[in-house]
Amino acid sequence: MTMEAERTLRADETTELGELAAQLRVDAIRCSTRAGSGHPTSSLSAADLLAVLVSRHLRYDWANPRDRANDHLIFSKGHASPLLYAVFKAVGVIDDEELVETYRRFGSRLQGHPTPALPWVDVATGALGQGLPVGVGIALAGRYLDRLPFHVWVLCGDSETAEGSVWEALDKAGHYGLGNLTAIVDVNRFGQRGPTELEWDLDTYRRRVEAFGCQALVVDGHDLAAVDEALGRARRATGPTVLLARTVKGKGVPEVENEPGWHGKPFKPDLAERAVEALGGVRRIRVAGPRPEPAPPPVTPAGAPPARPRYEVGARVATRNAYGDALRALGARPDVVALDGEVSDSTRADRFAEAYPDRFFEMFIAEQQLVAAAVGFQVRGYRPFASTFAAFFSRAYDFIRMAAISGADIALSGSHAGVEVGADGPSQMGLEDLAAMRAVHGSTVLYPSDAVSCAALVERMVDLAGVTYLRTTRGAYPVLYGDGEEFPVGGSKLLRGGDDDRVALIGAGVTVHNCLAAAERLADEGVRARVIDLYSVKPLDRQRLLDAVRVTGGRLVVVEDHYPEGGLGSAVLEALADLAEPVRVTHLAVRGLPTSGTASELMDQAGIGVAAIVAASRAALSGT
Amino acid sequence: MTMEAERTLRADETTELGELAAQLRVDAIRCSTRAGSGHPTSSLSAADLLAVLVSRHLRYDWANPRDRANDHLIFSKGHASPLLYAVFKAVGVIDDEELVETYRRFGSRLQGHPTPALPWVDVATGALGQGLPVGVGIALAGRYLDRLPFHVWVLCGDSETAEGSVWEALDKAGHYGLGNLTAIVDVNRFGQRGPTELEWDLDTYRRRVEAFGCQALVVDGHDLAAVDEALGRARRATGPTVLLARTVKGKGVPEVENEPGWHGKPFKPDLAERAVEALGGVRRIRVAGPRPEPAPPPVTPAGAPPARPRYEVGARVATRNAYGDALRALGARPDVVALDGEVSDSTRADRFAEAYPDRFFEMFIAEQQLVAAAVGFQVRGYRPFASTFAAFFSRAYDFIRMAAISGADIALSGSHAGVEVGADGPSQMGLEDLAAMRAVHGSTVLYPSDAVSCAALVERMVDLAGVTYLRTTRGAYPVLYGDGEEFPVGGSKLLRGGDDDRVALIGAGVTVHNCLAAAERLADEGVRARVIDLYSVKPLDRQRLLDAVRVTGGRLVVVEDHYPEGGLGSAVLEALADLAEPVRVTHLAVRGLPTSGTASELMDQAGIGVAAIVAASRAALSGT
Repeated sequence: MTMEAERTLRADETTELGELAAQLRVDAIRCSTRAGSGHPTSSLSAADLLAVLVSRHLRYDWANPRDRANDHLIFSKGHASPLLYAVFKAVGVIDDEELVETYRRFGSRLQGHPTPALPWVDVATGALGQGLPVGVGIALAGRYLDRLPFHVWVLCGDSETAEGSVWEALDKAGHYGLGNLTAIVDVNRFGQRGPTELEWDLDTYRRRVEAFGCQALVVDGHDLAAVDEALGRARRATGPTVLLARTVKGKGVPEVENEPGWHGKPFKPDLAERAVEALGGVRRIRVAGPRPEPAPPPVTPAGAPPARPRYEVGARVATRNAYGDALRALGARPDVVALDGEVSDSTRADRFAEAYPDRFFEMFIAEQQLVAAAVGFQVRGYRPFASTFAAFFSRAYDFIRMAAISGADIALSGSHAGVEVGADGPSQMGLEDLAAMRAVHGSTVLYPSDAVSCAALVERMVDLAGVTYLRTTRGAYPVLYGDGEEFPVGGSKLLRGGDDDRVALIGAGVTVHNCLAAAERLADEGVRARVIDLYSVKPLDRQRLLDAVRVTGGRLVVVEDHYPEGGLGSAVLEALADLAEPVRVTHLAVRGLPTSGTASELMDQAGIGVAAIVAASRAALSGT
Repeated sequence: MTMEAERTLRADETTELGELAAQLRVDAIRCSTRAGSGHPTSSLSAADLLAVLVSRHLRYDWANPRDRANDHLIFSKGHASPLLYAVFKAVGVIDDEELVETYRRFGSRLQGHPTPALPWVDVATGALGQGLPVGVGIALAGRYLDRLPFHVWVLCGDSETAEGSVWEALDKAGHYGLGNLTAIVDVNRFGQRGPTELEWDLDTYRRRVEAFGCQALVVDGHDLAAVDEALGRARRATGPTVLLARTVKGKGVPEVENEPGWHGKPFKPDLAERAVEALGGVRRIRVAGPRPEPAPPPVTPAGAPPARPRYEVGARVATRNAYGDALRALGARPDVVALDGEVSDSTRADRFAEAYPDRFFEMFIAEQQLVAAAVGFQVRGYRPFASTFAAFFSRAYDFIRMAAISGADIALSGSHAGVEVGADGPSQMGLEDLAAMRAVHGSTVLYPSDAVSCAALVERMVDLAGVTYLRTTRGAYPVLYGDGEEFPVGGSKLLRGGDDDRVALIGAGVTVHNCLAAAERLADEGVRARVIDLYSVKPLDRQRLLDAVRVTGGRLVVVEDHYPEGGLGSAVLEALADLAEPVRVTHLAVRGLPTSGTASELMDQAGIGVAAIVAASRAALSGT
């Protein structure tokens, strides 16, 4: 089953690589034992693979991690961080003291799992099955946009191939012919709590990989020459390669080799000492791998400044349409890339795709890969916009969470929010997306009510840091704002209001329209109500709320097309949590499980329609 | 490529099946045209498959949908609901008027995508790639626990095979040898916005399916005899089968057959009229398919009443350990099943696995399948507990969202919550889980602070309706409560308090211990602080909060090991939103991106440690 290697290594080269591999093992053991936690055995199995890769195949200028010509190295099995950091020592970018004395310590950049706190790390890993999908994004950028000969190398664990996201990634790698991508799977046959599902059944791995459109190379992961030959073939391949390396967990330390029960367990000092001695002791080998060919400077054609789409006040335009229009306008910037999960005719990303087909990437119905690819594109300096239904970003929530830890700058647009979706029913309705997206570290959450504000916010999104989420609405509603109006992130709009308002109606997105209609009705009854469009859900315009509290005596009615927990209502309450004066917030949200129906039937049923807002306002005024 | 069918059907049978298929097509067209929305072409492609399945293979007593012997039919491609509902008419459980006049209407049970509002629907579908993973759970129950000969038939779309969850499901189907499971893939080569990735490349589908351990049968999906023969083979197979049916989208309506641009578009009335006429008009065929063999009544051995594990007050016990102990104790109930995502030695589900190996199911690192299998087990009446790290349930958020729409009763236990995780770093820390889980419709969210309350709550979870989430802590903390103390869902505990308290410290889980220590320090300074353990995050004990507001003059300090949005702080604020008296909530939460470190270093850094609580309390009292 194992490939016969062409013996390309000279004896002295093999010796050198063996010495380096021993150093990597020794250092992985030392740092994890010193830390008292970590995954030495998962590092030992892959040490030979990394010794060969770093010495002979990874083209990387370690002094210039931002060099566009550099290869990319991603540890999808992020728990093997002792090995990665041992590599960093071997190439000379960290010293032995930092490695051994700070690994996993408070304040150290050598965290338990790698993050971009280290300049040689593209993305945070540690949630398994994510490194390869991100690698696909980087390779897409390299092949289709950068057109540079860098290669993307991803070290995967065998356990993580149980994640469906790995197969989404291999499928896309094959579909897009990513010859610049190699996954190296460290098949050490053990997961955390015991044997993996396939153990050393390399043949099944091979058949799966090939069926998904990738070249499979099966090697003994401890045969340095075989690994060298396979990595060379992988680099020369015209399509993606998966190197299936049969390895031994704990390799090099006979007491733990191929033994269960050693996952995630550092060696006790006495075992570590014996192991280090048996491996030949501490070394100070410094390896200089191949360097990249110099890359030409990035081509940044002077695109026309984006022309924001224009809409007439009062015209009925769906905000998802405005998203498509604005994204297409942004396409004048050559760094803007769009991706979609096979629903671009619904999210309106197809308007970008028509204008800029070369910068549109179809991810089909694979939302995990959709978000991961966006993360990959931003690693290469692009500004990706990824779109699908609001509800279906829930499929990629772990990827979004990890994108935040990576400090990734990605823009997400979720269409078909709330019960406003109508006849399609609850499976298609984003009703927990505001809660989920607000809770992402450092995120920005935007929910415009009309086409003008939506287009303006999309224009802002392109330069925002971190994960940005835009929520758009399926149906068409009147344009509320005039051209040229500005919509800063963290701002809001007072659509209606005066100094004698007795209640404030606060909405975002579709409920802004309901609030406006309710304010009209209340005015007919002689009750003055202000209407606030909280289009920026995170960050929130606290000052606008404070003004409303002051004017109305603290009578706020917050209306959202979302479940009651964690959404707009919570955002308002969080912003006013420590206010001294009394605030009474009436919170209208979707409390039951929706069904099919028209948008207005469902909003009325949920108690977020006009009548409910009027009634809540009356009740707030009567103090009941 | 297409299998040669053994012609097992007589001519009259073929004619009958053809008539039934025509009726299904006609009815799918009529109801969607009448509704003005829906997916007729996606229904037309699968009509022949369903005609044969329902007439000759699906063993189902339509009058008794709860019969344990019934086969299961899941429309993973839930958008083909017109076809499913046309089947329901053909078997006589709904009438023509309900079908045509109520489909997708407000108040109808015939929603845009199927939900268990219909007694013949096991689970809600409409988020693609979920029906098959749930089917795996049902088949696991059938093969390993029920030991009944029912079969699980899942109709899948071809587009949805792009979802990694489909491959997680096939992998598990193969691994567990689920001969009682058949996926029927309707390969009509079109997705929503255009051709699928593989179009009619049946051979690639076949190789993928086989590599994942399933039998692949390739048939012409409009050849009734071939379909009949394949379904028969599928039922007789000893392993799982994937029937790859080459079909034509829009089949039977020449104007739309195999044409792009028709996804999710109902026919205009004139086209519908022509199509119905060409198909032979409206029929009233009533089909009676095969019935199941009577099943023996369920064996419910009188298990010993679960003995709650006991802990000594003051002993240091991690709540994850208490979860494992309590789950093991619950195992005395024969309907309790446990599943884990290959981390049972961390979540402590291994304590159940050791005692009840026959009712423990290893899902390996495939969290989507983990949750889906739990949903499948509860379809069969079991009480599943699924566990992984709190952070990794984010991988299955779409499945959890859909479980709520299914009205599924599942218990989830997320370990390793918050920065308390320590050295492993942020990728392993559940820090947005409370927000995400609270926002799930009808969910219950529990976060115990000690082993006694944790064990008591696990005991309650087994009988709770809906999605229940338990958050457990990695580290060991002192037991606070005595044996026999009760912990109702929706309750809380006043751990320390009197009528002259000046501030209330409110925590859950690990922060309860910090609050207690802070209250001690404040007491030393002469400041009386009450401490509330809000172990039930949803539903919340509002009365306890009202009491605290009354006694302290509205000075609350809420402390949580979670990001600031949507978690415990929001839950408290939501509960007090409409209170007339002033409340000032100081909200301590994790506002930065954590790193590695010890639990106490990281809690101190995040400002949720003892010193921060003391400082916040002082500030609240001084009114700054």
